[in-house]
Amino acid sequence: MASAPFRVAIAGLGTVGAGVVDVFQRNADLLNTRAGRPLEIVAVSARDRSRKRGAHLSRYQWVDNPVSLAKMPGIDVVVELMGGAEGAAYELVEKSLSNGRHVVTANKALMAHHGYELAGIAENAHAGLMFEAAVAGCVPIIRVLRDSFAANRMTAVYGILNGTCNYILTQMREGNRGFDDVLKEAQGKGYAEADPSFDVDGVDTGHKIALLAALAFGVRPDFKSVRATGIRAITAADIRYAWELGYKIKLLGIAHDSNGGIFQSVEPCLVPAASPLGAIEDVYNAIFIAGDFFETPLLSGRGAGAGPTASAVVSDIIDLARGHVVPAFGIPAQALRQAMPLDPGPWRSRYYIRLTVTDKPGVIADVSAILRDHDISIESLLQRGRDPGHAVSVVMTTHEARHADVVAACALIGELPSAADRPSVMRIEDKL
Amino acid sequence: MASAPFRVAIAGLGTVGAGVVDVFQRNADLLNTRAGRPLEIVAVSARDRSRKRGAHLSRYQWVDNPVSLAKMPGIDVVVELMGGAEGAAYELVEKSLSNGRHVVTANKALMAHHGYELAGIAENAHAGLMFEAAVAGCVPIIRVLRDSFAANRMTAVYGILNGTCNYILTQMREGNRGFDDVLKEAQGKGYAEADPSFDVDGVDTGHKIALLAALAFGVRPDFKSVRATGIRAITAADIRYAWELGYKIKLLGIAHDSNGGIFQSVEPCLVPAASPLGAIEDVYNAIFIAGDFFETPLLSGRGAGAGPTASAVVSDIIDLARGHVVPAFGIPAQALRQAMPLDPGPWRSRYYIRLTVTDKPGVIADVSAILRDHDISIESLLQRGRDPGHAVSVVMTTHEARHADVVAACALIGELPSAADRPSVMRIEDKL
Repeated sequence: MASAPFRVAIAGLGTVGAGVVDVFQRNADLLNTRAGRPLEIVAVSARDRSRKRGAHLSRYQWVDNPVSLAKMPGIDVVVELMGGAEGAAYELVEKSLSNGRHVVTANKALMAHHGYELAGIAENAHAGLMFEAAVAGCVPIIRVLRDSFAANRMTAVYGILNGTCNYILTQMREGNRGFDDVLKEAQGKGYAEADPSFDVDGVDTGHKIALLAALAFGVRPDFKSVRATGIRAITAADIRYAWELGYKIKLLGIAHDSNGGIFQSVEPCLVPAASPLGAIEDVYNAIFIAGDFFETPLLSGRGAGAGPTASAVVSDIIDLARGHVVPAFGIPAQALRQAMPLDPGPWRSRYYIRLTVTDKPGVIADVSAILRDHDISIESLLQRGRDPGHAVSVVMTTHEARHADVVAACALIGELPSAADRPSVMRIEDKL
Repeated sequence: MASAPFRVAIAGLGTVGAGVVDVFQRNADLLNTRAGRPLEIVAVSARDRSRKRGAHLSRYQWVDNPVSLAKMPGIDVVVELMGGAEGAAYELVEKSLSNGRHVVTANKALMAHHGYELAGIAENAHAGLMFEAAVAGCVPIIRVLRDSFAANRMTAVYGILNGTCNYILTQMREGNRGFDDVLKEAQGKGYAEADPSFDVDGVDTGHKIALLAALAFGVRPDFKSVRATGIRAITAADIRYAWELGYKIKLLGIAHDSNGGIFQSVEPCLVPAASPLGAIEDVYNAIFIAGDFFETPLLSGRGAGAGPTASAVVSDIIDLARGHVVPAFGIPAQALRQAMPLDPGPWRSRYYIRLTVTDKPGVIADVSAILRDHDISIESLLQRGRDPGHAVSVVMTTHEARHADVVAACALIGELPSAADRPSVMRIEDKL
């Protein structure tokens, strides 16, 4: 065993940071054996020193300014667990890498926004930049894409990447409850933040899919090209109708490489209830990968939580201690292509469309005419209950239709005098 | 990019070997970029030079004696795809490693029997010994256990590891067909070997679970301690009864670490039909891992085939070309403990028991008395049809009972005058 200890500094001692300290303290011998050398936490930094964290921290040097860890002597790897795409987190990571110091981070926002630049800095300084914990908790998707599937030309990566949204959608379906009601409960249980917008508006999933696309396709992380739709607009009625049709609604992160053009989206989709993705409930995550030399393997597991995320952080530290330094996105930063965003307009899918219309004769005829004019053929149509003169729901599924046609048709339908609201439109993902 | 090419020699050009050549030829640029240096096949060896392989081999040096690749100059890694625990495969791997040459192999028998010794030779010579392709095709379980979950003290690893058996069991259930009938069909389709015993008697799964146990628990691969039961004795009736009770029968490889004692088995078990393992059908594999800092993540995918296996082989080559050399089982060979086999006698499980008994009054009373005397409580009992004086099936499920008690009771039941056959006994794995 190489005798030189591998010295770790941790910036940020929230749930994950305290979890990392816990892993180090409980599994010390195991980590040292697996790393091939002693691993030592030597310094920590967090905003509030007095907070109880359930871990013994007194043995480590306490540093008030986390950014100072970038240059403090006697540190081999800086673990950034503060969060945020800018500010201290960015400064610490940038300065540490510039200084030739390895970095492990769980910060998906930072990597999605600045991953390309930081990967280049890391390589120039021969430092490692690792972020297994940034995506999908204990599902080791970063390493799998970067190392395990390195022989494959990957064509798609997609899945359920946000545990909060999946929990909310699961509870809405199981309890036939509305979004706001379930969100409040999730906040009470600690499954959703006080400001839930990062999760429920698809931003978090967008950060993650941008990172997975970069690894799978060899492109620069390109968060701004992700077309993100969240789950706020999904009603209990949508979920019930989908269920009656044999589907569940899941918020999917989807990335495709189609002849070099990259499509990235976050969108609620209908997936067959009995499919592998349909079976992933509550806070679980699941990811499929399609490549040229295998059929889509699936990885699933709990998507968040102190234990799984800390376990991922520490696995990165062990890799670095073993001397395993690979470019952050698997290939040299200068080889990462600028992603050419793809227009989904020509893509054909089946669609779910729910209309809220005044219940009066002729409405369905108007709607059908618009769909016909856009070359969209109705597969099924469901109008539950009658309420003449008032708003009722009409639910349709379509045969395969062009994305652009569906968007255009639904805009026109929304402008009909009988339309009480804009149509709710979701893709049916039964080919995944 | 480091300019020195990484030079590969391939011994064995069957389905997987030809697949590796195909990956190299189709994805050359991609592999070079991901490896950070050019990858080059420089020599190949196989028994029959004239066989059509669908890959262009004329550009490589052809070697008649594969073992000569161990010392031939100008080779960085030897890829062993001949198979077999002894003979040329062993000799080639042993000599290559002794010579400081990296080895990649898909040979589970070789690694299960000689892995400990070979890992030691590799380390002494600072060579890498990689075997991702030996277990579960495109499911990257070796690297995941070795690297991704290195922060965890793992307590169990289990799953469906043999695609042939899973295909046979799936077809038996779906078609209500017998073992021999389905086996013959599987042989015709190339899903089973002419001599199927390695697969259907659990040997192949045993090799794999011994390797997974070594990686997960830090023990020497200990194939001879694996308690292996195959699927030959499973009848269409067993599968039908299990299905009526809400279960599917799956051949599981199971390894537990219980306070340092290691239990390894291969056995057909009843798993809930709607569970994640119950959902894995046909030639698919799936593996669960339990550790201290995560809840059981699942990895699944196609378990075999040229593409997935070749993809795993090439991922190992890329890792080595990147300079990533880790001990074969994740920790130094001398740190691998000798596994202390655990006696499953005291373990409590629910059981499925099928009896074939003469249909006459008093039989159930005799059986019930034996079970009672062994502290086994019946959960359900099913006797389909009546056929006085002739053999009929009685199917029972038990509440949790000690393994040793169930074995002892079933031995006594098999000796009853009314017993027409030995009872068929399987564990119900509903806690996995």
